[in-house]
Order: sequence, then structure tokens, then C-alpha cells
Amino acid sequence: MRARNPLNIGAAARAMSNFGFNSLRLVNPYKLAFRDARSAVGGSAVLKSAEEFGSVADAVADCTLVVGTTAVGQRSLQRPIEILGEPTARAVREHLQTGRVAMLFGSEKTGLSNDDFSHCQWLLRIPTSEQNISMNLGQAVAVCLYEIGRSAPCQSVTEVTPATAGDLEKITQCLMESLRLSGYVKPGTAELFEKKTRQLLLRMKLEAYDAKLLLGMVRQILWKLEQPGESNA
Amino acid sequence: MRARNPLNIGAAARAMSNFGFNSLRLVNPYKLAFRDARSAVGGSAVLKSAEEFGSVADAVADCTLVVGTTAVGQRSLQRPIEILGEPTARAVREHLQTGRVAMLFGSEKTGLSNDDFSHCQWLLRIPTSEQNISMNLGQAVAVCLYEIGRSAPCQSVTEVTPATAGDLEKITQCLMESLRLSGYVKPGTAELFEKKTRQLLLRMKLEAYDAKLLLGMVRQILWKLEQPGESNA
Repeated sequence: MRARNPLNIGAAARAMSNFGFNSLRLVNPYKLAFRDARSAVGGSAVLKSAEEFGSVADAVADCTLVVGTTAVGQRSLQRPIEILGEPTARAVREHLQTGRVAMLFGSEKTGLSNDDFSHCQWLLRIPTSEQNISMNLGQAVAVCLYEIGRSAPCQSVTEVTPATAGDLEKITQCLMESLRLSGYVKPGTAELFEKKTRQLLLRMKLEAYDAKLLLGMVRQILWKLEQPGESNA
Repeated sequence: MRARNPLNIGAAARAMSNFGFNSLRLVNPYKLAFRDARSAVGGSAVLKSAEEFGSVADAVADCTLVVGTTAVGQRSLQRPIEILGEPTARAVREHLQTGRVAMLFGSEKTGLSNDDFSHCQWLLRIPTSEQNISMNLGQAVAVCLYEIGRSAPCQSVTEVTPATAGDLEKITQCLMESLRLSGYVKPGTAELFEKKTRQLLLRMKLEAYDAKLLLGMVRQILWKLEQPGESNA
């Protein structure tokens, strides 16, 4: 990484830590920036063990795959530019099983140079909007490591017990009776309304727990509506 | 977004711009932070058009899906926590075809509160390393919007118009008042109950039509409960 701003070095280190990467290598960092970043409060283990190198060549010497990052789609260097996504992330992960992979990020102002690119097997572009392709360095690192760092696609496991039709019917009946007592149901429309209410409850796709909760509420309201002649307000 | 640091507000705006999102809403931002962020050199169009709101409820009122972000896997609120990835991103994109989606990000120090969470249909967690789950706010925004913003194929156009958060909040408030008048809400538990009720309504995933229907019912019941001292039975 060629970074000049200590905040960005710190941000990169934090993203690495977030996604389980630990070897941060800085190429010719501004001494002061690096020292500031390292001594920052809460500086992570990543930052503390970051290494300095005098050239990209030295920094990537022990890596078997070197991937450069770029915001632009076309560079003078003839090189395949891959778009960050699951296929590229998988390729990187596969590589990580047998060797070290270097991800190169440029300096904030100018990105990687053509010379830097010459060390790369391929180039990687984050699929940004064409209206604004220039990402903040720390955010670009976070996005790349998020994509590369995650394991196989995860789905969410939600253990839901749906409400039974019987539960729903109890709610429907209590609600209908409450609506009747409230004057919502006009004479002659009760049957139509009952269907409408039942359908409404079905569309809610309530879980068992929620059905119980809702029934409790409606029952209490109905009980109150049935109380004779006291002042409610 | 509840952000306190102008750099983070700026970083969030930049990531939004990078991934093609444009409506930034800030809940009670520190006036100074917001002004600083807005006037920053290179402040993007996103930042210039950012809006301020006094509460989460107001900020999400016109949204049909509200997603909260959290770093932790378990919260006291019983709520499905989804892991950021292609399936969740697809769900958000599908929703965007018919309505507005709010992505809630908390303040830097404390994240979202339980009260904030009570406005959310579901919660989203970025799959970070267990060793360091706490992400920088701007980086978290970038990662989420990268995943959601990319143009993966969208399936299934559903012909429903979901209810807005504002509609649901009206039902919540009427229902709460009805429950209060019915003696369902015990003194001292009102706040807890309001969250519980809001969540129940969110889980129903009501369509706009159904929300209107339900609001009409609850309003009528509430009106009846408010009538002084006549015999109801």
C-alpha cells in the first residue's frame, strides 16, 4: 500500500482486522504518517506488525499472486481488468490455499502507477457508479477484503413456527366482534367483512408467537368494549 | 444515520455516491459536524442534499423496508439477523423496485439503540472476523452499499405496494392507545409495549392496501373506546 494519510493507513488496518487479514505492507510511507498511524490509540495488531518496504518489488517478493486495484477501466498497460465480485474473490481465495496473495492499493491522490501495475498478474476494479469512480482508500480496502474474506455464501437461518389456521381464526372472530361493537361493520356486510378480515390475517403470515400476542391484544380490547356503560375516555 | 464525526458523514456520502445511492438522512446530527461535513471541499451532491430529521420514525416514514445494521449477532430484541451477502442484497434490490428502503447506521460509539431497532423489519450484520467485529462507520456503509448496489440480476417483480413506515406507525399509535384504554398496557410498561407492537406490525409485512384497511379498523375501535360512558354490550 502506498498511503500518505495516517488515517487511511489506520482505516486499512482496521478493515484488515475486520475481515481476518493480518499482513500489512507499506511501500515508502511518509515516515510521519506511518508513525502516527502506528501509535494511534486503539491501533490494532495489524498496524503494530505492519512492515515497511522500499519498493513494490520487495513488498510482493514472497507472493505468488499480485493483484493491483484500480478505479479506471482502461490503462495503457495491456492487462486484464477484473471486476470485484464472487468469481474474482474465489480466485483469490483459491490462490491463498497455496501461496501468499498481495493486494496492491495506490496512494490516495494518484492510485497505483504504471510501474506498480507492472508487478501485477491482474488488475481489479470495484464496480462503482460511473458518476463517481473514485473511492476513499480505506473504504476501497474494506470493500475488497469483505468480498475476498467471506466464506461461501451464507443464508440466514430463521427458525419460525407459523401460526395455525385455528389461531388465526380466533383472532378473526375477536376482531370481527370488536369491529361490530365499534360500529365498523354495517348491517348486511358482516359476512363480506369476515372474509376480508380473515384474508387480511392470512396475508400477515403470522408466526405462532405473534398470533398469540395479537390474540391477547384483541381479546383485551374486546373485553373492554363489552363492559357495560362505564366511562372509557 | 446517527453519526457524530463529520469525516464519517462525508465518508458515508462518498460511498453512496460511489455506488449510486443519493438520499442521505441524518437523525439528530451534531449541528457542527453536519455543517463541517456539508461544507467540506469536494462535498458531493449527496452531502449537499442530505436531510436532517428529529427521529428515526420521521426519517423512515416514507420507506417500505427499514433495515438496521448491527455488529453483534444477538440482541435482546427477537429479530432475524441476516448476514450481508448476495441473498440479502437481492432482497433489498427487489424491494427497491416498489418502494424506498432505509438502511440505518448507528452512531460511531454505540451503534443503533434498541429503540432504533424497533423501527426495523430486519437487521443486517456484515460478516466480519470474530476477532474484530467493530467496523469503521464509513467502511461499513461502503461494504453494505457495494453489496446492495451492484447490478446482479434481479428476479421476481412482485406486484405489491408495501406499506410505508409512516402508515405502520399510525397503526402502532392507534393500537397502543386502544390497548392503553383497554387496560392491556400496565403502568411502566408502555415504552416496552410500544416497541413490541411496532415490531409486530413490521413482521406482518403489510401491503399499502392492508395497512389502510387495518388502520381504519383500529381507528374505529379506538374511537369507540374513547366514547364516554354508554352501554356497549
